[in-house]
Amino acid sequence: MKVEARFLENYKFEMISENLSITSDQSLKYGGEGAGPMPSELFLWSIASCMGQAIVHISGKLQERIDNLKLTVEGKKHPEEFRYTKIIISVQGDYPEDRLKEIVKIAHSYCFISNSLADDIEIETRTGIDA
Amino acid sequence: MKVEARFLENYKFEMISENLSITSDQSLKYGGEGAGPMPSELFLWSIASCMGQAIVHISGKLQERIDNLKLTVEGKKHPEEFRYTKIIISVQGDYPEDRLKEIVKIAHSYCFISNSLADDIEIETRTGIDA
Repeated sequence: MKVEARFLENYKFEMISENLSITSDQSLKYGGEGAGPMPSELFLWSIASCMGQAIVHISGKLQERIDNLKLTVEGKKHPEEFRYTKIIISVQGDYPEDRLKEIVKIAHSYCFISNSLADDIEIETRTGIDA
Repeated sequence: MKVEARFLENYKFEMISENLSITSDQSLKYGGEGAGPMPSELFLWSIASCMGQAIVHISGKLQERIDNLKLTVEGKKHPEEFRYTKIIISVQGDYPEDRLKEIVKIAHSYCFISNSLADDIEIETRTGIDA
């Protein structure tokens, strides 16, 4: 897969893929106009949707009904080294907690993006009501 | 930074961040409806916008005018290991080719996302007209 970024102005780029396009920008805080998602939002969204779709896929295989599935993904950065140090993935849903833990564990092995991160980035996964 | 993914139906999730939301989906080919970017599109877009914004930032510092800047990012996956094996970043722009190469090299050190990838993922960078 190949995507494109065309410079518009300031920090704004038009992001293009085969069938879609969106605008990416920086937040007001970092000199942008907030006209679209920042790189870090796109990145954390990519992990959240990757894990989410894998959970849907595994749930289907295990004939588990999906109710109120919600993921949050938090990224912690090292400001001087310009890299992530930790990713926290929290998964909530109306499954029995053990079942959800089992599904999320299997889903991890299918997620191209979290599987492609550096070994020293800690990936913490939380499941259940308190996640 | 923290983002959220709320399950909608099939492979569709509502992706939410502090100020924005979009729908993520799978393509028709993989059982989705193509209602929004796939995880892999979000991921490659995140690399493209991260590198693009870093190039803009460095160009500003070096008082280099930005003309016709365009990046393409291609990801190659290992289908059985469910991970990326190679990322090809191509950068074109109306800069002298040596200058563009220098700017892109500095930009790399600022890109949180490409800096967070596993060591064995080859990142190939091409610059200039033939990129």
